[in-house]
Amino acid sequence: MNKGQRAEDPGIGSSFEKPVDRLMSRDGSFRVERIGESSGLREGFVALVTMSVGRLVLTFVIGYLTMNLLFGSLYMIIGVENIGNADLGTLTGRWMSAIGMSVQTLTTVGYGSLVPSSPAAWLVAGVEGVFGILGFSLISAVLYARFARPKANLVYSEQGLIAPYKDGWSFQVRVANRRNTLMVEVEARILLVMADVDDQGERLNYYNLPLQIDKVTFMPLSWTLVHPINAESPLAGLSMADLTQRRAEFLVILKGMDEGYMGAIHARHSVRYDELVWGARYVRAFSVKDGATRLDLNKLSDFMKVDMPARLPA
Amino acid sequence: MNKGQRAEDPGIGSSFEKPVDRLMSRDGSFRVERIGESSGLREGFVALVTMSVGRLVLTFVIGYLTMNLLFGSLYMIIGVENIGNADLGTLTGRWMSAIGMSVQTLTTVGYGSLVPSSPAAWLVAGVEGVFGILGFSLISAVLYARFARPKANLVYSEQGLIAPYKDGWSFQVRVANRRNTLMVEVEARILLVMADVDDQGERLNYYNLPLQIDKVTFMPLSWTLVHPINAESPLAGLSMADLTQRRAEFLVILKGMDEGYMGAIHARHSVRYDELVWGARYVRAFSVKDGATRLDLNKLSDFMKVDMPARLPA
Amino acid sequence: MNKGQRAEDPGIGSSFEKPVDRLMSRDGSFRVERIGESSGLREGFVALVTMSVGRLVLTFVIGYLTMNLLFGSLYMIIGVENIGNADLGTLTGRWMSAIGMSVQTLTTVGYGSLVPSSPAAWLVAGVEGVFGILGFSLISAVLYARFARPKANLVYSEQGLIAPYKDGWSFQVRVANRRNTLMVEVEARILLVMADVDDQGERLNYYNLPLQIDKVTFMPLSWTLVHPINAESPLAGLSMADLTQRRAEFLVILKGMDEGYMGAIHARHSVRYDELVWGARYVRAFSVKDGATRLDLNKLSDFMKVDMPARLPA
Amino acid sequence: MNKGQRAEDPGIGSSFEKPVDRLMSRDGSFRVERIGESSGLREGFVALVTMSVGRLVLTFVIGYLTMNLLFGSLYMIIGVENIGNADLGTLTGRWMSAIGMSVQTLTTVGYGSLVPSSPAAWLVAGVEGVFGILGFSLISAVLYARFARPKANLVYSEQGLIAPYKDGWSFQVRVANRRNTLMVEVEARILLVMADVDDQGERLNYYNLPLQIDKVTFMPLSWTLVHPINAESPLAGLSMADLTQRRAEFLVILKGMDEGYMGAIHARHSVRYDELVWGARYVRAFSVKDGATRLDLNKLSDFMKVDMPARLPA
Repeated sequence: MNKGQRAEDPGIGSSFEKPVDRLMSRDGSFRVERIGESSGLREGFVALVTMSVGRLVLTFVIGYLTMNLLFGSLYMIIGVENIGNADLGTLTGRWMSAIGMSVQTLTTVGYGSLVPSSPAAWLVAGVEGVFGILGFSLISAVLYARFARPKANLVYSEQGLIAPYKDGWSFQVRVANRRNTLMVEVEARILLVMADVDDQGERLNYYNLPLQIDKVTFMPLSWTLVHPINAESPLAGLSMADLTQRRAEFLVILKGMDEGYMGAIHARHSVRYDELVWGARYVRAFSVKDGATRLDLNKLSDFMKVDMPARLPA
Repeated sequence: MNKGQRAEDPGIGSSFEKPVDRLMSRDGSFRVERIGESSGLREGFVALVTMSVGRLVLTFVIGYLTMNLLFGSLYMIIGVENIGNADLGTLTGRWMSAIGMSVQTLTTVGYGSLVPSSPAAWLVAGVEGVFGILGFSLISAVLYARFARPKANLVYSEQGLIAPYKDGWSFQVRVANRRNTLMVEVEARILLVMADVDDQGERLNYYNLPLQIDKVTFMPLSWTLVHPINAESPLAGLSMADLTQRRAEFLVILKGMDEGYMGAIHARHSVRYDELVWGARYVRAFSVKDGATRLDLNKLSDFMKVDMPARLPA
Repeated sequence: MNKGQRAEDPGIGSSFEKPVDRLMSRDGSFRVERIGESSGLREGFVALVTMSVGRLVLTFVIGYLTMNLLFGSLYMIIGVENIGNADLGTLTGRWMSAIGMSVQTLTTVGYGSLVPSSPAAWLVAGVEGVFGILGFSLISAVLYARFARPKANLVYSEQGLIAPYKDGWSFQVRVANRRNTLMVEVEARILLVMADVDDQGERLNYYNLPLQIDKVTFMPLSWTLVHPINAESPLAGLSMADLTQRRAEFLVILKGMDEGYMGAIHARHSVRYDELVWGARYVRAFSVKDGATRLDLNKLSDFMKVDMPARLPA
Repeated sequence: MNKGQRAEDPGIGSSFEKPVDRLMSRDGSFRVERIGESSGLREGFVALVTMSVGRLVLTFVIGYLTMNLLFGSLYMIIGVENIGNADLGTLTGRWMSAIGMSVQTLTTVGYGSLVPSSPAAWLVAGVEGVFGILGFSLISAVLYARFARPKANLVYSEQGLIAPYKDGWSFQVRVANRRNTLMVEVEARILLVMADVDDQGERLNYYNLPLQIDKVTFMPLSWTLVHPINAESPLAGLSMADLTQRRAEFLVILKGMDEGYMGAIHARHSVRYDELVWGARYVRAFSVKDGATRLDLNKLSDFMKVDMPARLPA
């Protein structure tokens, strides 16, 4: 039997055919494979905005090469004779002229050492110039959309702690803004997930863990989220072995505004039973120097062990 | 007499001179023709941002051709003699030079095989260069605004179900995010519309259908919206024939945030009486593999029939 | 003595040394002159974003001419001899070469009929090219920011009505979205302002007028805002003469989301005592055709007179 | 002993090893030094968006020069012989040709007096053209993001006042929008911070100061925030000496929407004990002329002294 108020399924699902390894990864993403995704221009754009930097650069490079090859071939097809000053001598020369013509048109540099000299060439060049501008407009839009999408840069303590609090104990995790901007109106919530596994598969139970302070007006320094483990807490009476056996996972959800963007931010983090320290307290990560505060992000995970019974009071 | 709490008119209107075919189409839009719409620069921009892709491309192509024709004509009017290296021999040659001059200026490629050679030509070219840059700036803005406008890509089960729920029945409809991004803080609401038609025209009645869960924190998988049909539900005691005769329409309204954008999303969907299955339950659309979840969007509409009386309990 | 609950000052101020003509103009702006405004790059940008289209075009044209004159002068100062192919013969020719050089560089067209031919010329050209790109980037940003700023295009009935409602009377004003996009989650509020003038100046009293429906989920058609004038209403017992003498002004405030933008919209409107019809009802502005609805915005202000006593019941 | 309800720590921290000079500076920023900040493309972008104008210009100039030097060197490495029309005579001439080639390519002006004349040159030029476009796209994005980030331009009275209010006293501070746009839906909050210092360091106490009006619908003029000092106020019974000794600091927090942006704005301000006037009232900063209002921002801080006891009533 569990103590504490059961929370409703937060939208992840509570019944699975087989055990799920970990609901949320440490960076707050869910491990879900999607079959039957749709395509379309908009989805392509969203994909460009959300993919990794490496893949994005690769996509751009391939796109740029493809466009030049495509229009270069078009100039070859209509004939390089349609390009003034083209090198007509060898096939290599012809291709170089065609590709050069394409490069200077697609980038809109237009040196003019090679120039369209027939209606057909003007037509291809007129189309390519537009593609060039549109293509680079698209790249601008993607770059801007990537950067402009409000995204927190939060850092969490590597471990969650079962830490002393007043006369009893608490679950604590520490968070700070890694970015040199101010986060304001920050709200925090912690959901505890504990699994029951039987032959039917896995049943997940969700519990809201009330926090000592769940909203701060500013977050210039680190913030320690504290869930006091009183008699109503679902953690009351449990031991580390219980948490391990039930594969406890603490989902940390933060909402707020980052003044570097002035947009809403929604950040997530997960602390699993094997990232939990039984009996410890965080060491202060900031100090005061010349009347100003100094926050050392490298100390965010620092803690010191304290004595603690093997089982939390019920 | 109807059971259930009547809701206020949600802004659509409750009294019509003649029956309205369907209030909302499946994609969530209303079929309203508007007479006396305003025009203006801003409205033109909004139109470009919200029109279909096909019409947008057509608009751009026509605009590009028109600009080149316009400025080509201007070069013809001031005389192609003002363009250095122009082909003055034939009328075709003169037009080709004028159009070529325009194309390379509008795209800002500026090969330089044709060049302004008089103050008049420099004036036209100086104006055209600005128009080119501004025009393509506008295109960038339109592209960006189209993509950046937060828009959900939700997919709904093709049918709504009257499905078993605990000891009784429920109205259910299933929804999933087709996009590979996470939707968070999603709220759902279902409005039932049933019509009374008499000689005066049509009177619409609105009912809020309370949901078992009406807000989820995350939506990584599919979400089944469940309205339990208890004695207070406006559906209590009704049969399929009743729903058909009263032209029942379920308006599904979802609000949330798509992390691909981090902006507010407002999505709508409509399930009409003829898209309803009387007695069925959805088949689970996700499975667990290697500890991770796999969601098959192609299975979102899959259901299996169950036995059910012709009339819901009152 | 007034009936009705006095509302707090909504931020406009309640005490003035002399009577204020009209608090809010019909387009929702306040007539406030500001002395001591700040300047700065950001404020300049905000000014470009919010000024009228005419002034914006003028500003751009003057800016473009100024830049060309400036850089043209620079080329003259370093000497047109530094430009290859320049016309060195006459002063006019020299200026034309300098200006042409500037135009093709600022627009980044770069025909190349005129080319930098010395380090000094390359320096000026290198700087001007950057200014050109930055300048046009700024124009793009201004254009985008102007269009992207969510702005409602609402139209209101020209008059507010004192209209029949159930067994009594009501204050009504009608509003519709002129744009062919959907407005959702629209909230309305009406504030009545009535003045008391004495030797000390003017004292304004504010009253919240409760509405029959103050929030709609969608607004595809017109929406009639209805304040029922019951015994608690501040309008109870008043006559048209009272409203005129106290210079009654109804401030209409709408908040919502326009799906053409998916951003928050805040719209205002004002109905003054001399825009009020004593005893009338609105004529329906939409009709049903082929099962779809047709909204005629030209009929939005249409009403028909009804008999009404000179004084509202107290 | 303090009167008044203690507020929770608003996220700044309540316990410091040494006294903190001032929690918040007058412009609303916190003095926090951060050790261990992360880097990355996104953080670089955020840095460009939030740095001072001077540093931004310097960064751009250095970036532009570096790129030209880099690509100029590349043209030197592959050999200026690969550039048509290059000045091969002297080393200076070669460098000038290489740099000129780079400038016209990076800005996409492309005069064509210098042209790529070999595959190697076309390759470098093709890459540089892309870098040029991308670089300037990035600059556009930075410019736009800087300007588009909603940011209030509020001005506060230089001093806070202990001012007469009804039969007693109040803490007052005056604020106005310096920008000629309308701020709407503005909410205000004042937090009082008073310190207790002992050997352990400094302990901060936070108090919410309830305001007479804490939300206004519009803010076209100045707004005076008024905290009435009644028996429940934490200021009751205190003297100027008490406030000084406890290093009182009033944190003013405003939220709202600026219609120049239509985005949420979060503004902060701090009034320290040494910016407080004991016994004074603000002089009205606006006047009425021709039925319209005129706000003089230069008078925002104007006050006149009034007699007042040395200690507030308890």
